[in-house]
Amino acid sequence: MPYVNIRITREGATPDQKRELIEKTTRLLADVLGKNPETTVVVIDEVDTDNWGVAGKTVTELRGRVGS
Amino acid sequence: MPYVNIRITREGATPDQKRELIEKTTRLLADVLGKNPETTVVVIDEVDTDNWGVAGKTVTELRGRVGS
Amino acid sequence: MPYVNIRITREGATPDQKRELIEKTTRLLADVLGKNPETTVVVIDEVDTDNWGVAGKTVTELRGRVGS
Amino acid sequence: MPYVNIRITREGATPDQKRELIEKTTRLLADVLGKNPETTVVVIDEVDTDNWGVAGKTVTELRGRVGS
Amino acid sequence: MPYVNIRITREGATPDQKRELIEKTTRLLADVLGKNPETTVVVIDEVDTDNWGVAGKTVTELRGRVGS
Amino acid sequence: MPYVNIRITREGATPDQKRELIEKTTRLLADVLGKNPETTVVVIDEVDTDNWGVAGKTVTELRGRVGS
Repeated sequence: MPYVNIRITREGATPDQKRELIEKTTRLLADVLGKNPETTVVVIDEVDTDNWGVAGKTVTELRGRVGS
Repeated sequence: MPYVNIRITREGATPDQKRELIEKTTRLLADVLGKNPETTVVVIDEVDTDNWGVAGKTVTELRGRVGS
Repeated sequence: MPYVNIRITREGATPDQKRELIEKTTRLLADVLGKNPETTVVVIDEVDTDNWGVAGKTVTELRGRVGS
Repeated sequence: MPYVNIRITREGATPDQKRELIEKTTRLLADVLGKNPETTVVVIDEVDTDNWGVAGKTVTELRGRVGS
Repeated sequence: MPYVNIRITREGATPDQKRELIEKTTRLLADVLGKNPETTVVVIDEVDTDNWGVAGKTVTELRGRVGS
Repeated sequence: MPYVNIRITREGATPDQKRELIEKTTRLLADVLGKNPETTVVVIDEVDTDNWGVAGKTVTELRGRVGS
Protein backbone atom coordinates (compact mmCIF):
# COMPACT_ATOMS: atom_id res chain seq x y z
CA MET A 1 0.00 0.00 0.00
CA PRO A 2 2.65 2.57 -0.95
CA TYR A 3 1.97 6.26 -1.32
CA VAL A 4 4.06 8.01 -3.96
CA ASN A 5 4.14 11.77 -4.39
CA ILE A 6 5.71 13.02 -7.62
CA ARG A 7 6.38 16.75 -7.66
CA ILE A 8 7.26 18.41 -10.97
CA THR A 9 7.19 21.90 -12.38
CA ARG A 10 4.02 22.79 -14.27
CA GLU A 11 5.36 22.82 -17.81
CA GLY A 12 2.81 21.05 -19.94
CA ALA A 13 2.62 17.43 -18.81
CA THR A 14 -0.39 15.99 -20.64
CA PRO A 15 -3.14 13.79 -19.13
CA ASP A 16 -1.73 10.89 -21.17
CA GLN A 17 1.75 11.38 -19.77
CA LYS A 18 0.35 11.55 -16.25
CA ARG A 19 -1.65 8.37 -16.84
CA GLU A 20 1.49 6.63 -18.07
CA LEU A 21 3.51 7.88 -15.11
CA ILE A 22 0.90 6.63 -12.62
CA GLU A 23 0.57 3.25 -14.32
CA LYS A 24 4.32 2.62 -14.56
CA THR A 25 5.13 3.87 -11.06
CA THR A 26 2.52 1.50 -9.66
CA ARG A 27 3.97 -1.39 -11.65
CA LEU A 28 7.50 -0.47 -10.51
CA LEU A 29 6.51 -0.75 -6.86
CA ALA A 30 4.98 -4.16 -7.57
CA ASP A 31 8.02 -5.39 -9.54
CA VAL A 32 10.74 -4.17 -7.18
CA LEU A 33 9.10 -4.52 -3.77
CA GLY A 34 6.16 -6.85 -4.40
CA LYS A 35 3.66 -4.16 -3.38
CA ASN A 36 -0.01 -4.74 -4.17
CA PRO A 37 -0.94 -2.46 -7.10
CA GLU A 38 -4.59 -2.36 -5.98
CA THR A 39 -3.74 -0.22 -2.95
CA THR A 40 -0.86 1.81 -4.40
CA VAL A 41 -1.59 5.54 -4.51
CA VAL A 42 0.33 7.96 -6.74
CA VAL A 43 -0.24 11.71 -6.53
CA ILE A 44 1.34 14.17 -8.97
CA ASP A 45 1.81 17.79 -7.88
CA GLU A 46 2.50 20.36 -10.60
CA VAL A 47 4.20 23.46 -9.21
CA ASP A 48 4.54 26.88 -10.86
CA THR A 49 8.07 27.64 -12.04
CA ASP A 50 8.05 30.77 -9.84
CA ASN A 51 7.64 28.52 -6.82
CA TRP A 52 10.38 25.95 -7.56
CA GLY A 53 13.99 26.76 -6.82
CA VAL A 54 17.21 24.95 -7.61
CA ALA A 55 20.67 26.25 -6.77
CA GLY A 56 19.10 29.34 -5.24
CA LYS A 57 17.22 30.41 -8.38
CA THR A 58 13.63 29.89 -9.45
CA VAL A 59 13.01 27.67 -12.45
CA THR A 60 11.47 30.76 -14.09
CA GLU A 61 14.90 32.43 -13.86
CA LEU A 62 16.76 29.30 -14.96
CA ARG A 63 14.52 29.02 -18.03
CA GLY A 64 15.37 32.64 -18.90
CA ARG A 65 11.75 33.66 -18.81
CA VAL A 66 11.99 36.57 -16.39
CA GLY A 67 11.04 39.88 -17.99
CA SER A 68 10.90 38.27 -21.41
CA MET B 1 1.50 21.29 17.93
CA PRO B 2 0.56 18.71 15.31
CA TYR B 3 0.61 19.35 11.59
CA VAL B 4 -2.00 17.45 9.61
CA ASN B 5 -2.08 17.34 5.83
CA ILE B 6 -5.29 16.02 4.29
CA ARG B 7 -5.02 15.28 0.59
CA ILE B 8 -8.22 14.63 -1.37
CA THR B 9 -9.27 14.77 -4.99
CA ARG B 10 -10.80 18.06 -6.09
CA GLU B 11 -14.41 17.01 -6.45
CA GLY B 12 -16.49 19.73 -4.94
CA ALA B 13 -15.70 19.91 -1.21
CA THR B 14 -17.43 23.08 0.01
CA PRO B 15 -15.92 25.74 2.31
CA ASP B 16 -18.34 24.55 5.02
CA GLN B 17 -17.18 20.95 4.70
CA LYS B 18 -13.57 22.06 4.86
CA ARG B 19 -14.30 24.17 7.96
CA GLU B 20 -15.94 21.17 9.60
CA LEU B 21 -13.04 18.89 8.67
CA ILE B 22 -10.48 21.32 10.12
CA GLU B 23 -12.46 21.82 13.31
CA LYS B 24 -13.06 18.13 13.95
CA THR B 25 -9.54 17.02 13.05
CA THR B 26 -8.17 19.55 15.53
CA ARG B 27 -10.53 18.30 18.24
CA LEU B 28 -9.61 14.68 17.47
CA LEU B 29 -5.91 15.38 18.08
CA ALA B 30 -6.83 17.03 21.39
CA ASP B 31 -9.14 14.18 22.45
CA VAL B 32 -6.90 11.26 21.51
CA LEU B 33 -3.43 12.63 22.16
CA GLY B 34 -4.04 15.65 24.38
CA LYS B 35 -2.56 18.01 21.78
CA ASN B 36 -3.12 21.72 22.24
CA PRO B 37 -5.72 22.86 19.69
CA GLU B 38 -4.30 26.39 19.66
CA THR B 39 -1.16 25.28 17.83
CA THR B 40 -2.64 22.49 15.69
CA VAL B 41 -2.33 23.17 11.97
CA VAL B 42 -4.47 21.39 9.36
CA VAL B 43 -3.85 21.88 5.64
CA ILE B 44 -6.16 20.45 2.97
CA ASP B 45 -4.77 19.83 -0.53
CA GLU B 46 -7.27 19.32 -3.33
CA VAL B 47 -5.73 17.47 -6.27
CA ASP B 48 -7.07 17.20 -9.83
CA THR B 49 -8.46 13.76 -10.67
CA ASP B 50 -5.97 13.55 -13.58
CA ASN B 51 -3.15 13.76 -11.03
CA TRP B 52 -4.36 11.15 -8.53
CA GLY B 53 -3.84 7.47 -9.23
CA VAL B 54 -5.04 4.34 -7.47
CA ALA B 55 -4.38 0.80 -8.66
CA GLY B 56 -2.42 2.19 -11.61
CA LYS B 57 -5.28 4.30 -12.98
CA THR B 58 -6.12 7.96 -12.60
CA VAL B 59 -9.26 8.87 -10.70
CA THR B 60 -10.45 10.47 -13.94
CA GLU B 61 -10.34 7.02 -15.55
CA LEU B 62 -11.86 5.31 -12.51
CA ARG B 63 -14.76 7.78 -12.57
CA GLY B 64 -15.33 6.92 -16.24
CA ARG B 65 -14.92 10.51 -17.29
CA VAL B 66 -12.25 10.05 -19.94
CA GLY B 67 -13.50 11.03 -23.36
CA SER B 68 -17.07 11.10 -22.11
CA MET C 1 -9.39 7.72 -1.38
CA PRO C 2 -7.90 10.41 0.84
CA TYR C 3 -4.34 10.40 2.10
CA VAL C 4 -3.85 11.94 5.53
CA ASN C 5 -0.44 12.62 7.03
CA ILE C 6 -0.42 13.40 10.75
CA ARG C 7 2.87 14.75 12.02
CA ILE C 8 3.45 14.94 15.76
CA THR C 9 6.43 15.14 18.07
CA ARG C 10 7.67 11.80 19.36
CA GLU C 11 6.54 12.04 22.96
CA GLY C 12 5.10 8.69 23.86
CA ALA C 13 2.00 8.13 21.73
CA THR C 14 1.02 4.49 22.34
CA PRO C 15 0.03 1.93 19.69
CA ASP C 16 -3.53 2.10 21.06
CA GLN C 17 -3.66 5.87 20.69
CA LYS C 18 -2.35 5.60 17.14
CA ARG C 19 -4.93 2.92 16.34
CA GLU C 20 -7.68 5.18 17.68
CA LEU C 21 -6.36 8.18 15.74
CA ILE C 22 -6.27 6.21 12.48
CA GLU C 23 -9.76 4.76 13.00
CA LYS C 24 -11.38 8.08 13.89
CA THR C 25 -9.62 10.09 11.19
CA THR C 26 -10.85 7.58 8.61
CA ARG C 27 -14.40 7.81 9.95
CA LEU C 28 -14.20 11.62 9.96
CA LEU C 29 -13.38 11.69 6.25
CA ALA C 30 -16.33 9.39 5.59
CA ASP C 31 -18.73 11.43 7.74
CA VAL C 32 -17.78 14.90 6.52
CA LEU C 33 -16.89 14.27 2.88
CA GLY C 34 -18.44 10.88 2.13
CA LYS C 35 -15.03 9.37 1.39
CA ASN C 36 -14.78 5.59 1.12
CA PRO C 37 -13.05 4.31 4.30
CA GLU C 38 -11.74 1.24 2.45
CA THR C 39 -9.28 3.33 0.45
CA THR C 40 -8.46 5.99 3.04
CA VAL C 41 -4.80 6.01 4.05
CA VAL C 42 -3.54 7.62 7.26
CA VAL C 43 0.17 7.90 8.01
CA ILE C 44 1.51 9.14 11.35
CA ASP C 45 5.02 10.60 11.49
CA GLU C 46 6.63 10.95 14.91
CA VAL C 47 9.41 13.55 14.89
CA ASP C 48 12.15 14.07 17.49
CA THR C 49 11.65 17.18 19.60
CA ASP C 50 15.10 18.41 18.47
CA ASN C 51 13.76 18.46 14.90
CA TRP C 52 10.47 20.30 15.47
CA GLY C 53 10.44 24.06 15.83
CA VAL C 54 7.72 26.52 16.77
CA ALA C 55 8.22 30.24 17.16
CA GLY C 56 11.88 29.83 16.26
CA LYS C 57 12.66 27.37 19.06
CA THR C 58 12.88 23.59 19.10
CA VAL C 59 10.28 21.71 21.11
CA THR C 60 13.21 20.40 23.19
CA GLU C 61 13.92 24.00 24.22
CA LEU C 62 10.25 24.82 24.74
CA ARG C 63 9.88 21.77 27.04
CA GLY C 64 12.85 23.05 29.07
CA ARG C 65 14.77 19.86 28.52
CA VAL C 66 17.99 21.32 27.16
CA GLY C 67 20.92 20.59 29.44
CA SER C 68 18.62 19.19 32.09
CA MET D 1 21.18 18.04 -1.53
CA PRO D 2 18.42 19.21 0.80
CA TYR D 3 14.78 19.46 -0.19
CA VAL D 4 12.85 22.26 1.48
CA ASN D 5 9.09 22.64 1.23
CA ILE D 6 7.70 25.98 2.36
CA ARG D 7 3.94 26.02 2.74
CA ILE D 8 2.18 29.37 3.16
CA THR D 9 -1.32 30.72 2.68
CA ARG D 10 -1.97 32.27 -0.73
CA GLU D 11 -2.14 35.91 0.24
CA GLY D 12 -0.18 37.82 -2.35
CA ALA D 13 3.45 36.74 -2.15
CA THR D 14 5.12 38.31 -5.20
CA PRO D 15 7.52 36.58 -7.60
CA ASP D 16 10.30 38.80 -6.17
CA GLN D 17 9.54 37.72 -2.61
CA LYS D 18 9.51 34.09 -3.68
CA ARG D 19 12.85 34.54 -5.48
CA GLU D 20 14.31 36.09 -2.34
CA LEU D 21 12.92 33.32 -0.14
CA ILE D 22 14.40 30.61 -2.39
CA GLU D 23 17.79 32.32 -2.60
CA LYS D 24 18.11 32.93 1.13
CA THR D 25 16.81 29.52 2.18
CA THR D 26 19.40 27.91 -0.09
CA ARG D 27 22.16 30.07 1.41
CA LEU D 28 20.97 29.27 4.94
CA LEU D 29 21.37 25.54 4.33
CA ALA D 30 24.88 26.16 3.01
CA ASP D 31 25.85 28.41 5.93
CA VAL D 32 24.44 26.31 8.77
CA LEU D 33 24.95 22.76 7.49
CA GLY D 34 27.50 23.15 4.68
CA LYS D 35 25.02 21.86 2.10
CA ASN D 36 25.88 22.30 -1.57
CA PRO D 37 23.66 25.08 -2.96
CA GLU D 38 23.86 23.62 -6.48
CA THR D 39 21.69 20.65 -5.51
CA THR D 40 19.42 22.33 -2.97
CA VAL D 41 15.76 22.31 -3.99
CA VAL D 42 13.18 24.68 -2.50
CA VAL D 43 9.48 24.35 -3.33
CA ILE D 44 6.88 26.88 -2.20
CA ASP D 45 3.24 25.79 -1.91
CA GLU D 46 0.62 28.51 -1.70
CA VAL D 47 -2.60 27.23 -0.12
CA ASP D 48 -6.04 28.86 -0.21
CA THR D 49 -7.10 30.36 3.13
CA ASP D 50 -10.21 28.12 3.08
CA ASN D 51 -7.89 25.11 3.15
CA TRP D 52 -5.56 26.16 5.98
CA GLY D 53 -6.65 25.75 9.58
CA VAL D 54 -5.11 26.87 12.85
CA ALA D 55 -6.68 26.34 16.27
CA GLY D 56 -9.63 24.61 14.60
CA LYS D 57 -10.56 27.54 12.35
CA THR D 58 -9.77 28.28 8.72
CA VAL D 59 -7.53 31.24 7.98
CA THR D 60 -10.51 32.67 6.05
CA GLU D 61 -12.43 32.74 9.34
CA LEU D 62 -9.46 34.06 11.32
CA ARG D 63 -9.05 36.91 8.82
CA GLY D 64 -12.74 37.79 9.31
CA ARG D 65 -13.47 37.36 5.64
CA VAL D 66 -16.37 34.91 5.90
CA GLY D 67 -19.55 36.35 4.54
CA SER D 68 -17.94 39.73 3.99
CA MET E 1 14.23 18.41 -11.58
CA PRO E 2 11.44 16.29 -10.12
CA TYR E 3 11.20 15.38 -6.45
CA VAL E 4 9.66 12.00 -5.75
CA ASN E 5 8.72 10.81 -2.28
CA ILE E 6 7.97 7.10 -1.96
CA ARG E 7 6.37 6.15 1.33
CA ILE E 8 6.17 2.47 2.26
CA THR E 9 5.74 0.45 5.43
CA ARG E 10 9.01 -0.67 7.05
CA GLU E 11 8.88 -4.36 6.27
CA GLY E 12 12.35 -5.33 5.17
CA ALA E 13 13.13 -3.49 1.94
CA THR E 14 16.84 -4.13 1.31
CA PRO E 15 19.46 -1.55 0.28
CA ASP E 16 19.59 -3.26 -3.13
CA GLN E 17 15.83 -2.97 -3.61
CA LYS E 18 15.96 0.68 -2.63
CA ARG E 19 18.83 1.31 -5.06
CA GLU E 20 16.81 -0.34 -7.83
CA LEU E 21 13.71 1.65 -6.95
CA ILE E 22 15.63 4.94 -7.02
CA GLU E 23 17.36 4.12 -10.30
CA LYS E 24 14.19 3.02 -12.10
CA THR E 25 12.03 5.83 -10.77
CA THR E 26 14.60 8.32 -12.04
CA ARG E 27 14.66 6.65 -15.44
CA LEU E 28 10.85 6.59 -15.56
CA LEU E 29 10.68 10.36 -15.11
CA ALA E 30 13.21 10.77 -17.92
CA ASP E 31 11.38 8.37 -20.25
CA VAL E 32 7.84 9.62 -19.71
CA LEU E 33 8.37 13.34 -19.14
CA GLY E 34 11.87 13.99 -20.48
CA LYS E 35 13.08 15.08 -17.04
CA ASN E 36 16.83 15.43 -16.51
CA PRO E 37 18.00 12.48 -14.40
CA GLU E 38 20.94 14.47 -13.03
CA THR E 39 18.64 16.67 -10.95
CA THR E 40 15.94 14.13 -10.10
CA VAL E 41 15.64 13.47 -6.36
CA VAL E 42 13.95 10.38 -4.94
CA VAL E 43 13.40 9.98 -1.19
CA ILE E 44 12.07 6.76 0.36
CA ASP E 45 10.33 6.93 3.74
CA GLU E 46 9.88 3.69 5.64
CA VAL E 47 7.08 3.93 8.18
CA ASP E 48 6.36 1.59 11.11
CA THR E 49 3.31 -0.62 10.59
CA ASP E 50 1.79 0.83 13.79
CA ASN E 51 1.83 4.25 12.12
CA TRP E 52 0.26 3.35 8.78
CA GLY E 53 -3.47 2.92 8.48
CA VAL E 54 -5.70 1.67 5.67
CA ALA E 55 -9.45 1.28 5.92
CA GLY E 56 -9.34 2.53 9.50
CA LYS E 57 -6.93 -0.13 10.73
CA THR E 58 -3.17 -0.09 11.25
CA VAL E 59 -1.07 -2.33 9.02
CA THR E 60 0.02 -4.07 12.23
CA GLU E 61 -3.61 -5.10 12.75
CA LEU E 62 -4.13 -6.00 9.10
CA ARG E 63 -1.06 -8.25 9.21
CA GLY E 64 -2.53 -9.99 12.25
CA ARG E 65 0.49 -9.18 14.36
CA VAL E 66 -1.26 -7.55 17.29
CA GLY E 67 -0.75 -9.48 20.47
CA SER E 68 0.78 -12.36 18.58
CA MET F 1 1.60 30.67 10.03
CA PRO F 2 3.94 28.97 7.57
CA TYR F 3 4.91 25.31 7.75
CA VAL F 4 8.42 24.52 6.56
CA ASN F 5 9.70 20.99 6.05
CA ILE F 6 13.47 20.67 5.64
CA ARG F 7 14.57 17.25 4.45
CA ILE F 8 18.27 16.37 4.63
CA THR F 9 20.34 13.22 4.68
CA ARG F 10 21.20 11.94 8.14
CA GLU F 11 24.88 12.75 8.23
CA GLY F 12 25.55 14.19 11.65
CA ALA F 13 23.64 17.47 11.96
CA THR F 14 23.98 18.46 15.64
CA PRO F 15 21.18 19.70 17.93
CA ASP F 16 22.85 23.13 17.86
CA GLN F 17 22.85 23.24 14.07
CA LYS F 18 19.21 22.21 14.00
CA ARG F 19 18.33 24.89 16.57
CA GLU F 20 20.12 27.48 14.42
CA LEU F 21 18.37 26.28 11.27
CA ILE F 22 14.96 26.48 12.91
CA GLU F 23 15.61 29.93 14.38
CA LYS F 24 16.95 31.43 11.14
CA THR F 25 14.32 29.85 8.90
CA THR F 26 11.62 31.32 11.13
CA ARG F 27 13.26 34.74 11.00
CA LEU F 28 13.61 34.49 7.20
CA LEU F 29 9.88 33.97 6.77
CA ALA F 30 9.23 37.01 8.98
CA ASP F 31 11.77 39.18 7.13
CA VAL F 32 10.81 38.28 3.56
CA LEU F 33 7.05 37.69 3.85
CA GLY F 34 6.12 39.36 7.14
CA LYS F 35 4.96 36.04 8.60
CA ASN F 36 4.31 35.89 12.35
CA PRO F 37 7.20 33.93 13.94
CA GLU F 38 4.97 32.81 16.84
CA THR F 39 2.98 30.50 14.58
CA THR F 40 5.74 29.42 12.19
CA VAL F 41 6.45 25.69 12.31
CA VAL F 42 9.70 24.16 11.02
CA VAL F 43 10.17 20.40 10.87
CA ILE F 44 13.49 18.78 9.96
CA ASP F 45 13.49 15.24 8.55
CA GLU F 46 16.78 13.34 8.54
CA VAL F 47 16.79 10.54 5.98
CA ASP F 48 19.21 7.59 5.74
CA THR F 49 21.65 7.86 2.84
CA ASP F 50 20.35 4.50 1.54
CA ASN F 51 16.93 6.10 1.14
CA TRP F 52 17.93 9.31 -0.67
CA GLY F 53 18.64 9.24 -4.38
CA VAL F 54 20.05 11.84 -6.75
CA ALA F 55 20.74 11.25 -10.42
CA GLY F 56 19.51 7.67 -10.06
CA LYS F 57 21.99 6.73 -7.33
CA THR F 58 21.66 6.56 -3.56
CA VAL F 59 23.69 9.02 -1.52
CA THR F 60 25.37 5.97 0.01
CA GLU F 61 26.69 5.11 -3.47
CA LEU F 62 27.59 8.71 -4.27
CA ARG F 63 29.59 8.95 -1.02
CA GLY F 64 31.48 5.81 -2.07
CA ARG F 65 30.46 3.99 1.07
CA VAL F 66 29.00 0.87 -0.49
CA GLY F 67 30.94 -2.22 0.50
CA SER F 68 33.64 -0.16 2.16
